[in-house]
Amino acid sequence: MHPFRSEAEFTRWLAKKSAGKRRGLRLGIGDDAALFEGPPGFEWVVTADLSVEGIHFSMATHPPDSVGHRALARSLSDVAAMGGKPRFALVSLATSRRISSRWIEAFLKGVLRLAGRYHVTLIGGDTTLNAGKIAVDMTVLGEVRRDRALLRSGARPGHHIFVGGKLGYSALGLQLLRSGSHRKSAPAREALRAHLYPKPQCQLGTFLAERRIASAAIDISDGLSTDLNRLAEASKTGARIWGDRIPGPGIDSSVPSPLALHGGEDYKLLFTVAPAHTNLVPDRFDGAVIYRIGEIQDRRSGVEIVNNGRSMRLKPEGYDHFQIGLKTERAKAVRLLKTNK
Amino acid sequence: MHPFRSEAEFTRWLAKKSAGKRRGLRLGIGDDAALFEGPPGFEWVVTADLSVEGIHFSMATHPPDSVGHRALARSLSDVAAMGGKPRFALVSLATSRRISSRWIEAFLKGVLRLAGRYHVTLIGGDTTLNAGKIAVDMTVLGEVRRDRALLRSGARPGHHIFVGGKLGYSALGLQLLRSGSHRKSAPAREALRAHLYPKPQCQLGTFLAERRIASAAIDISDGLSTDLNRLAEASKTGARIWGDRIPGPGIDSSVPSPLALHGGEDYKLLFTVAPAHTNLVPDRFDGAVIYRIGEIQDRRSGVEIVNNGRSMRLKPEGYDHFQIGLKTERAKAVRLLKTNK
Repeated sequence: MHPFRSEAEFTRWLAKKSAGKRRGLRLGIGDDAALFEGPPGFEWVVTADLSVEGIHFSMATHPPDSVGHRALARSLSDVAAMGGKPRFALVSLATSRRISSRWIEAFLKGVLRLAGRYHVTLIGGDTTLNAGKIAVDMTVLGEVRRDRALLRSGARPGHHIFVGGKLGYSALGLQLLRSGSHRKSAPAREALRAHLYPKPQCQLGTFLAERRIASAAIDISDGLSTDLNRLAEASKTGARIWGDRIPGPGIDSSVPSPLALHGGEDYKLLFTVAPAHTNLVPDRFDGAVIYRIGEIQDRRSGVEIVNNGRSMRLKPEGYDHFQIGLKTERAKAVRLLKTNK
Repeated sequence: MHPFRSEAEFTRWLAKKSAGKRRGLRLGIGDDAALFEGPPGFEWVVTADLSVEGIHFSMATHPPDSVGHRALARSLSDVAAMGGKPRFALVSLATSRRISSRWIEAFLKGVLRLAGRYHVTLIGGDTTLNAGKIAVDMTVLGEVRRDRALLRSGARPGHHIFVGGKLGYSALGLQLLRSGSHRKSAPAREALRAHLYPKPQCQLGTFLAERRIASAAIDISDGLSTDLNRLAEASKTGARIWGDRIPGPGIDSSVPSPLALHGGEDYKLLFTVAPAHTNLVPDRFDGAVIYRIGEIQDRRSGVEIVNNGRSMRLKPEGYDHFQIGLKTERAKAVRLLKTNK
């Protein structure tokens, strides 16, 4: 059996082992990214994220440029969640001889195209041939103005909860890719695009940070239920969201789609705003609608969802990288995708 | 077939794709590490290095704390080769369910113990369970005083070539591990230690950089023959080394051991010094003898080794991560290990 029951437990253990003040270090393990000293008035944001074949993508369903795009998007989104402007990336690629030249070039094209769009420069990395699965580790460095970074821990009871766009479309896209059906309709194309070529919300992140609008932020990479619980835990609060406000594929019904609640990899920002600043939150930003979905409450009230006037505990049922197998979150996600057909 | 015949070719392709001046970026792809803007008077050094099961280590021969130690040492050594003082690390670990809790904890213990010795703080990373091989990506950030970083490209004809300690012991240690023989003698223990728990030369690197002693530097990770060729190419020069000066397991003979010439993972610094500064190079540093092994020459003279008065071209016969298989460098290394028994 695995020593750590969850990724959170593992991260806490590691954070404890690496605790302590260090010169030039502003924030270590435990948030979306770490912060360290930059040029005068700035801090550097740094994050590293793995994308592994069979977990984050599959050769059968994901074109190589999408694998590259998604690997970089994961890290860009972490930088966005800190309010950082991404600047540099290092890509480490463990590949194997069964992978064609064409695949690797298309993969890198996907990386470089997204990097170019965000003015990110590739400054390093590593490559190795193994005989196993493809694994990509993407390190991204970003900059943020000193003391403006958005942390997970700044939410307080009474703050409003926002999400930077629609949720569940990436999970829906994965479902469509796997089933191979209904690919031609406009909503299907939107879902496929959301899954294969997600847009990390870097500009929204810097906007919220620079103007000190948000009190806390996290990106939704592992599902709203999981990432909201993480934000609440870091802030030592509870949270309440309204089921009929969750903007997902099921927004027209009064109960949110499980895809929107638990589906991961949408890379929308989840952020909180003190009531005094709510008027500074725009209705739309960079083409996406911003939704107010709930409010932070006292820790003792827990993390809840209100459906048809009934309040229920919202457990983290998104993706946890330490629990993969038949009885796990991944299996749940797959089941969830199936029931949603 | 693979698109790029060598790692160097791949790196050049990627460097070209990522070229161009960027605000805050001092050095991108192509050296041991990249450099970007730090606090006043400083620059940050950053590198990422992969360690993959079956290539860089094997579960049968490498204890888990050694896997962690070696993964971090690879990156620390790159920072050392830039003259940087390592400060922060991010560790990304793709593991699998067949790996026990004990293995992961011992792996991290190896990482944290070496990190502690160099005052390096773990500030992030990622973890994921896959069903394949173990892959570790280690990102290390270090600091260096502005304009003092050691590049590969600063060597000029007439500069002396030094190496920061004995070579070939890591390859010898691997050979011993595989054969399981002669483990009790003092030289065998030294070789095993050199392979399992290498000491990156960070203090030597900062010493050479701070005092502006070295004109160029690289760390010997893939074998002297390969890394000397890399340094010469980056400096647009040739080089000549003397076979009887190469400090390896065969130093008592007049011809150097192939282990010392081509064996990788010794993580000693290879550096060049202008004649006017040679007197500033100490005979020993941090317990290791420093050897003068040759001199930089004109590019047209190529990279040569002089054995018994005869000059021969020194081809890169060390490790290239894009050439793994029966006809490759790795096979050569294995053959080399066998002939050296």
